[in-house]
Amino acid sequence: MGYEYDAAIAVTRTGDGVFDADLEAGWMVGGGINGGYLQSVVGNAIRSFLEGSGHPDPYTISSYFISPSRPGPATVRVGLIRTGRGTSTVSAGIWQEQDGVEVQRISALATYGDLGALPAGPEHLADTPPQLPPVEECVLTSDSPEDWKKFVPMLDRFQMRLDPATAGAFVGAPGGNNFIQGWFKLVDDRPIDPIALLTVVDTLPPVTFELGIPGWAPTLELTAHVRGTPAPGWLRIRHETKNFTGGFFEEDCVVWDGAGRLVAQSRQLALQPRPM
Amino acid sequence: MGYEYDAAIAVTRTGDGVFDADLEAGWMVGGGINGGYLQSVVGNAIRSFLEGSGHPDPYTISSYFISPSRPGPATVRVGLIRTGRGTSTVSAGIWQEQDGVEVQRISALATYGDLGALPAGPEHLADTPPQLPPVEECVLTSDSPEDWKKFVPMLDRFQMRLDPATAGAFVGAPGGNNFIQGWFKLVDDRPIDPIALLTVVDTLPPVTFELGIPGWAPTLELTAHVRGTPAPGWLRIRHETKNFTGGFFEEDCVVWDGAGRLVAQSRQLALQPRPM
Repeated sequence: MGYEYDAAIAVTRTGDGVFDADLEAGWMVGGGINGGYLQSVVGNAIRSFLEGSGHPDPYTISSYFISPSRPGPATVRVGLIRTGRGTSTVSAGIWQEQDGVEVQRISALATYGDLGALPAGPEHLADTPPQLPPVEECVLTSDSPEDWKKFVPMLDRFQMRLDPATAGAFVGAPGGNNFIQGWFKLVDDRPIDPIALLTVVDTLPPVTFELGIPGWAPTLELTAHVRGTPAPGWLRIRHETKNFTGGFFEEDCVVWDGAGRLVAQSRQLALQPRPM
Repeated sequence: MGYEYDAAIAVTRTGDGVFDADLEAGWMVGGGINGGYLQSVVGNAIRSFLEGSGHPDPYTISSYFISPSRPGPATVRVGLIRTGRGTSTVSAGIWQEQDGVEVQRISALATYGDLGALPAGPEHLADTPPQLPPVEECVLTSDSPEDWKKFVPMLDRFQMRLDPATAGAFVGAPGGNNFIQGWFKLVDDRPIDPIALLTVVDTLPPVTFELGIPGWAPTLELTAHVRGTPAPGWLRIRHETKNFTGGFFEEDCVVWDGAGRLVAQSRQLALQPRPM
């Protein structure tokens, strides 16, 4: 029996650079589908497209969100921009039929390579892994009330245990922090590979929850950098916004593995929530 | 008489979404042309393409670097992905003829809007502007030795005054910092608008200079977010790398204006320099 995550991101090649996908309702959040999950569907199609190139791993992917995706059939298209000795760069996107018309959902650029082939160089680290209480002292987000989970079905897709100090939105009142952090695993312990990391970076609740700012914040763009293949086990994830200003806010996410290595980094730009 | 920067980023429409440009040798650095400058050429073509849409300003642009650009004629192509009420999203790229074949230089996705139309919302700032010594105590990078400037002609395109504490590469020895910061203006005091900000974020010397790591580091991807139109006068700019590890390093740049506002933010992903 396979992992549910693999079924959710599965793609079937139907033509040159064309893939069928089936967007999973279980990854919905509010009225749309989680952007990180969509990014992994695209990332999976790109990996399939690049089979044989020697470039199986995403190094970087930038996803621009065009319109809200809906559960159900979708078409992923991938086009080669250039393949070289160390990397391949592609453009890609997801489309869905809506009222008889094909509508684009996301547009992406990505550069793939081989994470295993990168030489170990000098290291200069100014960052450290998120400092978290033990897993069992953290707040399991899938323990949320059922009416909340009806609004955010994706909470059942993973085991996320939030640092209680930053879990305000889940324990009653916003803590006022500009960051949220916790432990992460997929629901059925499916190992996190570079494609799944493209989902992980977008799973934490919006920092606006912790800042006590109501409303829905549309993400314009999400860029993820994969820096390594994670060791098995719990990941430490954290995202923060340092500049909630000018009508926008950025959310910077980091993912560290159990071996103490930074394995992914992302930044997204969102418009500030409008009064509803 | 116009500003030299405007001539350097000028584009001429030759067809539907097709523009001629002339890449300026003065923006060369080493064997290639500065990525930020290229991003402004693309950004300028996009602005022209979107004329009449009500979306004159870049909110976010992601540039993937495909092959090294050369001074001289280039073609910029822009294609509309979607235009909506508040934003327009496009794909774009630069091509040049090389040995009789058209070769792609950069590939970009961008979302434009109207910075002036964004409502002022709540502010939560965890960041502060870079703390710098007075302009006159800082190191003017265009005062570099002539043989160095022959390698980096773009040093004459702007007035950059580096904080002496992070200007190691220009004053003899690397300081070992993971950041470089300073003051910035274009050479002829050309006002910095949102399009020019796409250049500014890529003008500081590589952090590897300050870390004492030799070699050339190829940038895979650069994403810039424009958060506001700068007030006239000196800008404060700073970039840093927190994670020089796993074969990669990221460079995060911030640009603050004289009114104390964050006006741009960028991140780029580069491969660690290979021994030469």
